Amino acid sequence: MSRRFSPPLFFLFFLCSTPLILTQLNDDPTIKTMHDFSGYPLHDPSNPFKSSDSISNSLSVDAQTLQKQIDELSTFSDAPAPSVTRILYTKNDVLARRYIKNLMGLAGLSVREDAVGNIFGRWDGYEPALTAVATGSHIDAIPYSGKYDGVVGVLGAIEAINALKRSGFKPKRSLEIILFTSEEPTRFGIGCLGSRLLAGAETLAEALKMMVDGQNISFLEAARSAGYARDEDDLSSVFLKKDSYSAFVELHIEQGPILEKEGISIGIVTNIAAPASVKVDFEGNGGHAGGVLMPERNDAGLAAAELTLAVEKHVMDSGSIDTVGTVGILELHPGAINSIPSKAHLEIDVRDIDEDRRNAVIEKIHNSAKLIAKKRKVTLSVFKIINQDPPAQSENSIIKAMEAASKELNLTRKYMVSRAYHDSLFMARISPMGMIFIPCYKGYSHKPEEYASPQDIENGVKVLALTLAKLSLS
Amino acid sequence: MSRRFSPPLFFLFFLCSTPLILTQLNDDPTIKTMHDFSGYPLHDPSNPFKSSDSISNSLSVDAQTLQKQIDELSTFSDAPAPSVTRILYTKNDVLARRYIKNLMGLAGLSVREDAVGNIFGRWDGYEPALTAVATGSHIDAIPYSGKYDGVVGVLGAIEAINALKRSGFKPKRSLEIILFTSEEPTRFGIGCLGSRLLAGAETLAEALKMMVDGQNISFLEAARSAGYARDEDDLSSVFLKKDSYSAFVELHIEQGPILEKEGISIGIVTNIAAPASVKVDFEGNGGHAGGVLMPERNDAGLAAAELTLAVEKHVMDSGSIDTVGTVGILELHPGAINSIPSKAHLEIDVRDIDEDRRNAVIEKIHNSAKLIAKKRKVTLSVFKIINQDPPAQSENSIIKAMEAASKELNLTRKYMVSRAYHDSLFMARISPMGMIFIPCYKGYSHKPEEYASPQDIENGVKVLALTLAKLSLS
Repeated sequence: MSRRFSPPLFFLFFLCSTPLILTQLNDDPTIKTMHDFSGYPLHDPSNPFKSSDSISNSLSVDAQTLQKQIDELSTFSDAPAPSVTRILYTKNDVLARRYIKNLMGLAGLSVREDAVGNIFGRWDGYEPALTAVATGSHIDAIPYSGKYDGVVGVLGAIEAINALKRSGFKPKRSLEIILFTSEEPTRFGIGCLGSRLLAGAETLAEALKMMVDGQNISFLEAARSAGYARDEDDLSSVFLKKDSYSAFVELHIEQGPILEKEGISIGIVTNIAAPASVKVDFEGNGGHAGGVLMPERNDAGLAAAELTLAVEKHVMDSGSIDTVGTVGILELHPGAINSIPSKAHLEIDVRDIDEDRRNAVIEKIHNSAKLIAKKRKVTLSVFKIINQDPPAQSENSIIKAMEAASKELNLTRKYMVSRAYHDSLFMARISPMGMIFIPCYKGYSHKPEEYASPQDIENGVKVLALTLAKLSLS
Repeated sequence: MSRRFSPPLFFLFFLCSTPLILTQLNDDPTIKTMHDFSGYPLHDPSNPFKSSDSISNSLSVDAQTLQKQIDELSTFSDAPAPSVTRILYTKNDVLARRYIKNLMGLAGLSVREDAVGNIFGRWDGYEPALTAVATGSHIDAIPYSGKYDGVVGVLGAIEAINALKRSGFKPKRSLEIILFTSEEPTRFGIGCLGSRLLAGAETLAEALKMMVDGQNISFLEAARSAGYARDEDDLSSVFLKKDSYSAFVELHIEQGPILEKEGISIGIVTNIAAPASVKVDFEGNGGHAGGVLMPERNDAGLAAAELTLAVEKHVMDSGSIDTVGTVGILELHPGAINSIPSKAHLEIDVRDIDEDRRNAVIEKIHNSAKLIAKKRKVTLSVFKIINQDPPAQSENSIIKAMEAASKELNLTRKYMVSRAYHDSLFMARISPMGMIFIPCYKGYSHKPEEYASPQDIENGVKVLALTLAKLSLS
């Protein structure tokens, strides 16, 4: 079940001082107030109809106001500035969602939310029966992170719509902005929770009924405290039909150093690499580091060291620069200098833009783990593939639209692979997909030093706006 | 400065209900009370003079009372039974020390303590000008450990003296029991603190003036709270002159599985292996497990894995069964599945009974660490040898005495290497040394399951008593 914007009761208690923005903006007596609050110029609905070709020169992005919004949104945080901590369904998450919905309303979008809090803001096209073109990203933030990750793709999308409206453009296909619930795995351990469900993740929808967070609060309880999933336990209402959108485009900071280093304005993402995550436990007898002679040992730590090097070897053997593998977690038990490790726990991340190649590496790692366990007489007590999402390819027509938009705007650009994963990875399951990257300072992300310049953000928003316009007319 | 038993003021506050045992036992009105408390039969001083040869048959060890004392001592613990936690200079350590001093007093020993709380109980021989024969061990216990490690060598020594007294034996050389302070490194990170100081560890004596524990309590402050080091900061008063003893013998549970597995009663220790401990840090740039391509990485975790395997290789290459090496600690930073390790910390323990062979392995490990760092473009920011104690050999004459004693008592015996280290390792620096091992359940130690049977303890105490008798007369 989805519903038109009907703000949860929760807001009424917390925020009764500010009247709600309804979808019919002109009927709302509080426009002036909200306008002052957001500092956001409204579009002028009197502008003439324009094609995408004619707007590339007239597109004006209000980078200053957009920056102000990014700064304002960052204040809804459980950590002091410059850190941002915004966890799913907490008070600050709810306040931040409300801030976004208000801006969507001010932009003249009709707003609806689904049972897990994915938020949709729609600008109806003049052929509303056609499937819509969508854009969007997330606003949740892991503890002590920054204010640009995800946010640029949400606030930037709203500004892109406003810029299109100011330019006089009228979309043929409807344009829709999506705020995805919980891209970060912080609270319930599942990244891209909202977009996975939109893409029809049935197992996840079932599992969420039983899941609890670190404080033993159930997912449904937490969702209800934020005003979602009120009347239903069945989250399958969130699933979208395949081909609900004719295109999905996400604007995002690169979270890598390449664009900044090369002085390029726009990254046109051709592929999103996807991780497979594996947990491995080896177990042996342990014992005193003095008391047990070498031939009598079955040292779980040595098995772990060998598997760590095997991960590197199998990744390198793939022969592709796009295959990467990492042992980021290696824990020994009991972890004392004079104790032979009786247990070793590893967590392995393997990514690629080619699913078969990535899965072949995982298979080789599994074989190595079994051989090492046999050779070292340790038990391979756990070899668990935690997730194994398929990578995604950008749709050629969307790549072409992004490229043309960058070119028309005279912005330097390059094709790149997204090695971090995004909601786009899951939207690609139900829609043709593309992503636009902008440079960020030193590639930093997930920390307070995360930064993208107003100029780079402006460039990204312009490319997004023009790309949406092109896709809307296609 | 050492002093005759003058109980620290601390006791008077904590334990004023029980009068102190003075060295002149017959003058003390509380003997009956203490006798009842300890359940310990006093020796009969009217027995005739006997040589060691004549006592092997008349030696009777009160295994039941000894077990009761082991159980009673284990109640001075910061952890609930069956775990024992007894940390240096804590209230329970002070109470346990008092329990031991009381038993020493009841056994007719004259008791003194030094500035760090090494406790000495002396039975004067009939040629008191000769250097004494000593025995002893420790009673401190690491968190959540058992009740036999160390304790058997202290309570067992007191029972050995009592058994000798009951048998009518009179020592020629004086016999002395030593309770060593802090064999375990729990509180200040230094194992065998008391015996190291007795052996004249000048650097340690200096360092202790500045050392603090995990709660920022200084060593001297902690010692004073337990009634030690009251008038002096200079701990060199603790040092003993070389050849202060003609022999030192320690009774201890094996802490390994060999005696139990082979059904042998007595282990005659020929060598004590000594550990060298090394701390190693590798540092690299880290980065996102998706974002940084393999050729651009300098993964500190891979360097650590390689060094871990190199440790095993160099140990095996030594060609000796007595060389052992362990990486017991391997920590990765930041320790997230999607982060390339930017730092890896290892702690390595290498032991041998041959110091040169052990140090050659350490040198090879150092070379490997440098080569790996160079190859992997990581920084070897730390390679620190924390300790590198020389191994020790038992004195031939003491081995012969232990062997003869076991034989006269019809106990099966075997020569063995002590692969754990003990206060004996440091006593060997100032005295001829020997050690007696008894079987323990599955070789378990440092955990609540630690166990030695009353029969095995009785055998060990008998061998200790007879060995002390022989050495006293030599």
